[in-house]
Amino acid sequence: MKSKRMRGFASDNNSGIHPEVIKAIAKVNNGHVIGYGDDKYTHKAIKKIKRHFGKDIDVYFTFNGTGSNILSLKILTDSFHSIICAETSHIYVDECGAPEKFTGCKLLPVKTSNGKLTVDAIKYHMHGFDFEHHSQPKVISITQATEMGTVYTPQEIKKITDYAHKNDMFVHMDGARLSNAAISLNKSFKEITTSVNIDALSFGLTKNGAMNAEAVIFFDKEISKNCKYFRKQSAQLGSKMRFMSVQFETLLSNNLWKQYAVKANAMAKLLEEKVADIDEIKVTQNVESNGVFAIVPPEIIPKLQKEYFFYMWDESRSEVRWMTSFDTTENDIEEFVKLIKTYLK
Amino acid sequence: MKSKRMRGFASDNNSGIHPEVIKAIAKVNNGHVIGYGDDKYTHKAIKKIKRHFGKDIDVYFTFNGTGSNILSLKILTDSFHSIICAETSHIYVDECGAPEKFTGCKLLPVKTSNGKLTVDAIKYHMHGFDFEHHSQPKVISITQATEMGTVYTPQEIKKITDYAHKNDMFVHMDGARLSNAAISLNKSFKEITTSVNIDALSFGLTKNGAMNAEAVIFFDKEISKNCKYFRKQSAQLGSKMRFMSVQFETLLSNNLWKQYAVKANAMAKLLEEKVADIDEIKVTQNVESNGVFAIVPPEIIPKLQKEYFFYMWDESRSEVRWMTSFDTTENDIEEFVKLIKTYLK
Amino acid sequence: MKSKRMRGFASDNNSGIHPEVIKAIAKVNNGHVIGYGDDKYTHKAIKKIKRHFGKDIDVYFTFNGTGSNILSLKILTDSFHSIICAETSHIYVDECGAPEKFTGCKLLPVKTSNGKLTVDAIKYHMHGFDFEHHSQPKVISITQATEMGTVYTPQEIKKITDYAHKNDMFVHMDGARLSNAAISLNKSFKEITTSVNIDALSFGLTKNGAMNAEAVIFFDKEISKNCKYFRKQSAQLGSKMRFMSVQFETLLSNNLWKQYAVKANAMAKLLEEKVADIDEIKVTQNVESNGVFAIVPPEIIPKLQKEYFFYMWDESRSEVRWMTSFDTTENDIEEFVKLIKTYLK
Amino acid sequence: MKSKRMRGFASDNNSGIHPEVIKAIAKVNNGHVIGYGDDKYTHKAIKKIKRHFGKDIDVYFTFNGTGSNILSLKILTDSFHSIICAETSHIYVDECGAPEKFTGCKLLPVKTSNGKLTVDAIKYHMHGFDFEHHSQPKVISITQATEMGTVYTPQEIKKITDYAHKNDMFVHMDGARLSNAAISLNKSFKEITTSVNIDALSFGLTKNGAMNAEAVIFFDKEISKNCKYFRKQSAQLGSKMRFMSVQFETLLSNNLWKQYAVKANAMAKLLEEKVADIDEIKVTQNVESNGVFAIVPPEIIPKLQKEYFFYMWDESRSEVRWMTSFDTTENDIEEFVKLIKTYLK
Repeated sequence: MKSKRMRGFASDNNSGIHPEVIKAIAKVNNGHVIGYGDDKYTHKAIKKIKRHFGKDIDVYFTFNGTGSNILSLKILTDSFHSIICAETSHIYVDECGAPEKFTGCKLLPVKTSNGKLTVDAIKYHMHGFDFEHHSQPKVISITQATEMGTVYTPQEIKKITDYAHKNDMFVHMDGARLSNAAISLNKSFKEITTSVNIDALSFGLTKNGAMNAEAVIFFDKEISKNCKYFRKQSAQLGSKMRFMSVQFETLLSNNLWKQYAVKANAMAKLLEEKVADIDEIKVTQNVESNGVFAIVPPEIIPKLQKEYFFYMWDESRSEVRWMTSFDTTENDIEEFVKLIKTYLK
Repeated sequence: MKSKRMRGFASDNNSGIHPEVIKAIAKVNNGHVIGYGDDKYTHKAIKKIKRHFGKDIDVYFTFNGTGSNILSLKILTDSFHSIICAETSHIYVDECGAPEKFTGCKLLPVKTSNGKLTVDAIKYHMHGFDFEHHSQPKVISITQATEMGTVYTPQEIKKITDYAHKNDMFVHMDGARLSNAAISLNKSFKEITTSVNIDALSFGLTKNGAMNAEAVIFFDKEISKNCKYFRKQSAQLGSKMRFMSVQFETLLSNNLWKQYAVKANAMAKLLEEKVADIDEIKVTQNVESNGVFAIVPPEIIPKLQKEYFFYMWDESRSEVRWMTSFDTTENDIEEFVKLIKTYLK
Repeated sequence: MKSKRMRGFASDNNSGIHPEVIKAIAKVNNGHVIGYGDDKYTHKAIKKIKRHFGKDIDVYFTFNGTGSNILSLKILTDSFHSIICAETSHIYVDECGAPEKFTGCKLLPVKTSNGKLTVDAIKYHMHGFDFEHHSQPKVISITQATEMGTVYTPQEIKKITDYAHKNDMFVHMDGARLSNAAISLNKSFKEITTSVNIDALSFGLTKNGAMNAEAVIFFDKEISKNCKYFRKQSAQLGSKMRFMSVQFETLLSNNLWKQYAVKANAMAKLLEEKVADIDEIKVTQNVESNGVFAIVPPEIIPKLQKEYFFYMWDESRSEVRWMTSFDTTENDIEEFVKLIKTYLK
Repeated sequence: MKSKRMRGFASDNNSGIHPEVIKAIAKVNNGHVIGYGDDKYTHKAIKKIKRHFGKDIDVYFTFNGTGSNILSLKILTDSFHSIICAETSHIYVDECGAPEKFTGCKLLPVKTSNGKLTVDAIKYHMHGFDFEHHSQPKVISITQATEMGTVYTPQEIKKITDYAHKNDMFVHMDGARLSNAAISLNKSFKEITTSVNIDALSFGLTKNGAMNAEAVIFFDKEISKNCKYFRKQSAQLGSKMRFMSVQFETLLSNNLWKQYAVKANAMAKLLEEKVADIDEIKVTQNVESNGVFAIVPPEIIPKLQKEYFFYMWDESRSEVRWMTSFDTTENDIEEFVKLIKTYLK
């Protein structure tokens, strides 16, 4: 895919990294430290993460979101379990079967209109308990913010975790865009994870200004007691860990993470507003984080894509996905919308 | 493990990264590019790697050495195969069973005196062919430079690849320290891989100045035609790939990789020389790359470790491993040897 | 589950075995023969199977239907593939995740009204090709007769295999009740498998009078060339194979298999007829093999179950499943229907 | 392999099945019973097994020895664990990697002279605890009687289980020939399993007169609480279970199992005695169960194999394995030894 503009709307991982992250990397590049995480920079980063999530958590840095997801799910399951998730979730459609391969579990998809699970929708899969022929439901995995740009309220999450725990199940949260959700809800990280009883969190900052800052967080150390072995076995343990952990330390300090997520979310809102008065375009999802989903006349899509990266979401109904990022500018939005209008004429 | 000195002899991954690598990262941090490797920086890095290994290769960047190893081995095997390797190899002892978990294969250890496999030693496992009860030998995995600091000559490798191919088997090379081996032999990368018919290479620069630059290289694209899917499924596909690939681009340009490996190897040689006249110390392996293995009086080991990081290798015979790195200085060696002498008095 | 009658309608695997099978087992219990299948009885059984399916097939005996299914699917896939199947299929709901665990693949469910896949319904999952983030669709798995008691015509199968092969995919058939389907269609085994281009078949006779006679059949030996290793690795290779293979030899001779399947199918038809005039009962599926699905007033179900084994299929709509078997008698049906009528009064 | 005699010395699984087993199968072939083990015949068989091993055990029937082994090992491990076993053990050399594939674990071989592990030999692998790079030793697997025809005394087993439990590890026993061991030691099953603190047992009767009677026995129900799911997922759950369980019931009644194992062991002893005075033949292992290992002049081996099935054990030293079975006769031995003497002349 080639396009002419410096920035497009393909994905928030098409953007670069925060300059402070590079500075921090340079700063810790000093002398020898023990590899694999037992170093002062990593200890400091973990302390910082605890300040955001609470002190009883257990943190494991990983390389990418898929790595975080398969590691969390492995810790929460045995291979005879099943994992309930939205049909649009990253673990279900975008990880090339990594969860099945690494956990041996069955993933059970739930159809949703907006990427969000509800207890009612989950119930479809809640049967066959104690029946040895049937994979045993054990984990509900939700994404915050969802792949559809929507966001769970803390109350909505709490309903799901309550239901899960009542049924002796766990809740995993894929938080690749947790920052965008926190900003959207005007809540702290803790209020949308620890306080609503999430069991395992894939916490990513890569989409929010880091190079590769991903971690798995567990909220009960008994559950994660063997995680260090599974992390190594999943090839997710970095040797020069300080250069990964310092990214967390940096972005979680001085509200850098907020600065970036605020910007990305605002740009999505702006884009939504700007296309609101274009009759030919219909926004299909609530714009609650940094993505805009819209039905667009099919004839103009390839033309737009020549200028700006972005993806078709559902070809059957000519629905596209536009992702904004921390470095999207108001001017980017204006230029883009101008171009849409030009092509629609 | 705490120690007083800035640099120790624990591992070459305890060192930092080349300042040019950080500069390069900063330089590519510019605008949006497609994620996952289809960007100009990654294309350029692959071109550079081809200049070193030959143009018919197939390259896949990964996050770490274990990731490279399990991905290469998966491509070369089906789960009913076995993989022959040195009993001291990283894949056998230092990856927490990641190869078994990801490939489903059996790993067959070969005892060696110096970490190097030979055809004669391999033959111990060459039986049970066509017998369905027996895991079928399919891959011979060698490490260059070995975990014992020794190095295979191209002729030695060729004997193994000839033998393997005659038996319808593949040869995998774990090249986490390939640079050190190339320098030691005064050969190009190509001469010790492509030209001697290696089938798959785990090529790492992390131990030689990179932050996390690892790749799998295949020398026959038919073999690796599905590698992109397996890489994704193994959670080894990075999103912001430019920041990984540019590390290769940087270190493989202007002989940076040589500069660092030359230095690391020289420091090991220096250390070997300096301890040669200490009667109480016996170097146990040929010092051919950047590691020195030595039997040291047990009473001084903990004292030394208080000052310098390094690992016990074989407690039963009081053998330690001292790894040098690109940033080890002559002064480091001198101070260290002085300390040894002090404690021995 | 306890019930008073000798025979119920729970499953065709609740029935016993054909007396001829026991006689045959006794007959081959004579002297020593090589284990694991290289014996004259097994050779003879394979020859007999070839007479039914064509001579270019490759046959592997297994222990049970799940064993056959995971072995066939493993041969047809790599772990990054996906397998499309009916949401009601045995591999999807009744094997406790064995297919995911053994193949590492994702299973993609298709909603159906009658347990039968169609090309149109399959298309829902036919996307993401060549996209490394997405499990690659590789196998379509159909069940003949289906878990809903319906049967694919040869033409219907041909449409699916044509579509699959055009898309470089394979078709697997779960033939746990292949005999019932063949009888229903009045076709030979060959006409509904080999002649319509099935790639791999799980062929079971356990539900049709055998003790444990299951096999995987491939129709292209190139595909199955490593099957013997995968069978051993899946723990599906029997040592005293003659006692398994002789069951096939017996039931496939003298039309024994027909005699039993004809009987089972006829009894289902009879049951359907007998309940047809009961207003309170609504048969929900075409009765094409040996199962009858029906909506039954919920209050009488537990009463009936005290007398006869059978399973609730869909509690939400009070739908039950009644399976007939080769040993179901007309009297069983009459008594059962009489009881229904009594309870309905 | 073809040979002229009705019975050879290849393996005890080349023999047939006890006539009483066939009679019992015929006897339970009566009416419908619930599949998968919840039937009165299976309940009775389990009760019988408890009479032999103690009442607090947990029993799961499986299809074959490999099935029993992978299921037990899976229950005792997580994938980051390692399993210590003899280099000659069935799980290490004869299961085509099934244990690695199903458990994800590393198997660590121990060289032995006689197939028997000792605490001293095990210690070679007892390191790397708590070190995340290293597969964590968790199970010691022993075979009783061993693949070399030798037998562990209860005291020898107790030393191993004491050592394992002290180190927070489990002991698995592969009891494919447990009957032969019990007879050899003149002990009950309980005295060599339950009483010496074995954690999981693969208990097989297939080599002792059954068609396919294999089971996994756990001695602490807490450990095996999820075994029913793993059994299903491993495709080791039989549907018409009564025909499998009745084999246990039969052979464990009226000392039938003893009658057969006594016979097999006695024939091995007889063979040992008969070749004792042949100078050219050297028996290499203590004959403690039903196998004789011997170095035989290589020139006569193919000649003997034309008449009698048996296997070369170690070609490098011309060592063969002769297995006796319950149906081996004194005349078989005499004829065989006569032939040896003829060929040696």
